[in-house]
Amino acid sequence: MKYFIVVFILLTSQASAQIPKLYNHIANDVHSIYSRVLHQDRQIYINVPKLDSADVNKSLPVLYLLDGENHFHILSAYIEYLRHWKIIPPILVVGIVSVDRIKDLTPINSLINFDGEVSSNYKTSGGNEQFLNFIQQELIPYIEANYKTSPFKIFAGHSFGGLTAINCMLTRPDMFSAYIAISPSLWFGNKYILRLAGQKLPNLAMTNKKLFYSVGNEDGTFRNDLLKFDKLVTQNNSKTFKHQYKYYPNEDHMTEPIPAYYDALRFVYKNWTNDDTK
Amino acid sequence: MKYFIVVFILLTSQASAQIPKLYNHIANDVHSIYSRVLHQDRQIYINVPKLDSADVNKSLPVLYLLDGENHFHILSAYIEYLRHWKIIPPILVVGIVSVDRIKDLTPINSLINFDGEVSSNYKTSGGNEQFLNFIQQELIPYIEANYKTSPFKIFAGHSFGGLTAINCMLTRPDMFSAYIAISPSLWFGNKYILRLAGQKLPNLAMTNKKLFYSVGNEDGTFRNDLLKFDKLVTQNNSKTFKHQYKYYPNEDHMTEPIPAYYDALRFVYKNWTNDDTK
Repeated sequence: MKYFIVVFILLTSQASAQIPKLYNHIANDVHSIYSRVLHQDRQIYINVPKLDSADVNKSLPVLYLLDGENHFHILSAYIEYLRHWKIIPPILVVGIVSVDRIKDLTPINSLINFDGEVSSNYKTSGGNEQFLNFIQQELIPYIEANYKTSPFKIFAGHSFGGLTAINCMLTRPDMFSAYIAISPSLWFGNKYILRLAGQKLPNLAMTNKKLFYSVGNEDGTFRNDLLKFDKLVTQNNSKTFKHQYKYYPNEDHMTEPIPAYYDALRFVYKNWTNDDTK
Repeated sequence: MKYFIVVFILLTSQASAQIPKLYNHIANDVHSIYSRVLHQDRQIYINVPKLDSADVNKSLPVLYLLDGENHFHILSAYIEYLRHWKIIPPILVVGIVSVDRIKDLTPINSLINFDGEVSSNYKTSGGNEQFLNFIQQELIPYIEANYKTSPFKIFAGHSFGGLTAINCMLTRPDMFSAYIAISPSLWFGNKYILRLAGQKLPNLAMTNKKLFYSVGNEDGTFRNDLLKFDKLVTQNNSKTFKHQYKYYPNEDHMTEPIPAYYDALRFVYKNWTNDDTK
């Protein structure tokens, strides 16, 4: 602890001779990818971490983030700051910009809304399988062809994005190394994903995987559903499966991602040291 | 609460017809200002919030942030996100880039370091008065001449920056509307600022002012000093002085700013509504 304070003072006082490099500019690169799977152009928001000379040859873990237009900057800012202070490694952030999130981020077609009523807002729902195909078959290969990446991949989402992260973990557990689900909309489709978790999760091969899931003070069944999910997670028999549930009583559905994504990053990189290659 | 969820779903589902605007790009404008007070060029990092059409004629409150090279992006990302969801107003962020933070951010010359030993690292200390003159006489007028600003101004800093925020509040209480001091280095100079607070704070004119101060799990006297400061704050007799003390037992000196700056923004804009002009 004292080490950090001293290093902070020394590092920053050395800046007196020159204008300090503003290490934490966010790149704001927007890539446009035509997806044959989805038959549409997709915008991808990429932040390449500024590497110290010691790190320049290292392979980068990658964070694939849903709802990129919402949370990309907060996560990129966290990552640039934390890796600068060597609390986590440099991470490539890939923010997937939403086009029709109702379609892409829901596992089945269901018109029933949060209040249990039929709503035309959900008429496109049910495209999650195709969307995960796009990520697996097109986006990940694109990123791995264009950047020097490590095998360690994180998949993160909020709300329907959190639902998607859990669906991906249940149906394609090997696709990512760590999953982050902030307030997943487990209510959707008569709790389809919660039921799927009940079937799959206790025996899912989660060796060396990590999972963070959280909920705020939302109305309805958000918290109860996640507590049921938590029970299923703790029944999983993979001994090296690390998981954390967190509840934010003072945060609502839209503010919760701010503290939760920070806590999720710290959880995924708990006990990480600068010598780690992950 | 339910309102937020419904609005979130509707707003985001409407994006299906077009590529959504990535509202939260951070501007990354770097202005260079020659300071006659300091006899040097100073780099200023500015984020101009992207205004909705309804807000385009509104005057902007301004956050003046010390150690801009460290915390500018996190604060800009928080502000862009929270104002998008109408939890706080759009705020102009002015990050002051450090040149010699030992000099600029300490109130007196003292060579005694955190461990109580003499250290040449502090030989330039004691320039805070001149630095505050720069902000008051040059930087604020520059910002107010170039942007449409409201009178509501926030001054925020961490470590020596937190010490500076408190020194400013004690010696120039009218300069800002709200002060944020994250882990202020009250130990510096034989607790000079803590002693000054003991003289000034109980009777300081703090009408309608706000103050947030916090501490992590640092070694040494960080927390005890801040608790002494907290006692002095609560003795202040200004009835409309709003203040909050917060302790982060799981955060160290360098990670604490992440949750603390978020909590500080929420505190300053507690009970804010979209009709507010502040």
